[in-house]
Amino acid sequence: MTEGNRAGSWRIVEPEEGPEGIRLNYRMTVAYDGSGFSGFQVQRQRRTVQGELEAALQRITRETIRVKASGRTDSGVHAYGQVVSFATGWRHSANDLCRAVNAVLPEDIAVRDARLVGPEFHARLSACWRLYVYNLYRSEIRSPLLSRYAYRVAGELDLWAIQQGADELIGEHDFAAFGSAVGGGSTVRHVRRAVWVSDWGWPERWLRPACQGMLQFQIEANGFLRGMVRRLVGTLVEIGQGMRPIGSLKELLASGDRSQAGRPAPACGLCLWHVAYE
Amino acid sequence: MTEGNRAGSWRIVEPEEGPEGIRLNYRMTVAYDGSGFSGFQVQRQRRTVQGELEAALQRITRETIRVKASGRTDSGVHAYGQVVSFATGWRHSANDLCRAVNAVLPEDIAVRDARLVGPEFHARLSACWRLYVYNLYRSEIRSPLLSRYAYRVAGELDLWAIQQGADELIGEHDFAAFGSAVGGGSTVRHVRRAVWVSDWGWPERWLRPACQGMLQFQIEANGFLRGMVRRLVGTLVEIGQGMRPIGSLKELLASGDRSQAGRPAPACGLCLWHVAYE
Repeated sequence: MTEGNRAGSWRIVEPEEGPEGIRLNYRMTVAYDGSGFSGFQVQRQRRTVQGELEAALQRITRETIRVKASGRTDSGVHAYGQVVSFATGWRHSANDLCRAVNAVLPEDIAVRDARLVGPEFHARLSACWRLYVYNLYRSEIRSPLLSRYAYRVAGELDLWAIQQGADELIGEHDFAAFGSAVGGGSTVRHVRRAVWVSDWGWPERWLRPACQGMLQFQIEANGFLRGMVRRLVGTLVEIGQGMRPIGSLKELLASGDRSQAGRPAPACGLCLWHVAYE
Repeated sequence: MTEGNRAGSWRIVEPEEGPEGIRLNYRMTVAYDGSGFSGFQVQRQRRTVQGELEAALQRITRETIRVKASGRTDSGVHAYGQVVSFATGWRHSANDLCRAVNAVLPEDIAVRDARLVGPEFHARLSACWRLYVYNLYRSEIRSPLLSRYAYRVAGELDLWAIQQGADELIGEHDFAAFGSAVGGGSTVRHVRRAVWVSDWGWPERWLRPACQGMLQFQIEANGFLRGMVRRLVGTLVEIGQGMRPIGSLKELLASGDRSQAGRPAPACGLCLWHVAYE
């Protein structure tokens, strides 16, 4: 396969050849509890998801492997469906790779599945859609059983207003008011889903069916700017609390002025749920 | 109120008088994430729920307070509805007490409510029914987003068999095969509810409606022996996995032989959900 023989926004990656011969390209779906990590991206002296993954892969394959991820989650952000890709000369099945890597990974990361993919697959460049969820609960008192994975909002929230705000995100917009592009690229993104779902409900759900306090924001886009979901949630919550007028989100998008956006909602509520490829 | 003027299994506690005058009796509902504690009961040099609660109460009331709890949860066991009681000469409303204590408690404990109760109320002796829930998920691969609050079971589980086993627990039985009574008392307990509920489901529930892996065991009794719920769950899971015949639970109860019970299921799945008083 040669470069340029295929149209599209992602470049063709050649199979890399090491001393052992052809290296195969793998794709892995990874879940992690972000609480114990300084984000995804590898950093010196810090515990990161990438660092732990690469250390585990090195133990299994005896190669120095650099993984590519669909995106970098920030410190404290969780993932259920992060996707990474990498090439290796390791010669066993993808299932064996999955089992072997899980056996050496720490408890707060797990590989949900591993599969062999073509050499052109790149976890970030090939991704079409990314879905994030943001969990929050309305309560006057914090809940120790929810606070690791959800943000507490005290007081009333106008659910109609908060969904009206979310509706304005649908389509292609310049999201400069909500974050910055890594490397200073375009801040235009296409959002195809932005909904608030109520009663996502663990652990209160089973025994307290009357509990109405749980809310989950689901947002899917072709890409996200740094801090974008958390600033969007912070702004929407302010709309729901009546601190911003309904409809102000459109003006905020038009202004491109990040100082006018809401305070970013805390990392604990955010989870990278799914990445879709063609 | 004098001792003995009221029939019942719990003794009457006189209002205690300190130098400041009459001390009032309070009842608090407490939730905690048990992961960071060496159980409920206060121990030297260990972080315990009781230790943190008493330290917080001392900061607020400037008194040395010993709290009574509905029961002692073991190391790593969570609670959504633990109940404690204590007397204090502090002179503000129960709501103020709740707010003040929550302001100084660490993040992994919270007081859900506080109320003034009669001097006869005792969190343990007045309790009629205690409800525990045990969360598990069936998966070949551990899930970092579930493992803090649920136990993973690999392989198939026969849900019909596991519920048949649970059905045999209903009624009054000697549970000596499943635990020991604190202080060597009776091991007879009355179970009035023992059900397996499927798809308790956070966080997979919303976006993976097809996920069938979640199970919650709910058991309510007038009291529990030490380690009883975890040994019951361990034994029921072995029945569900076909390692013990359906119906073996009855024999196990009759034998009173703890060496024949299943291995206790891990603490992380267990949560004291609710304590009922008259």
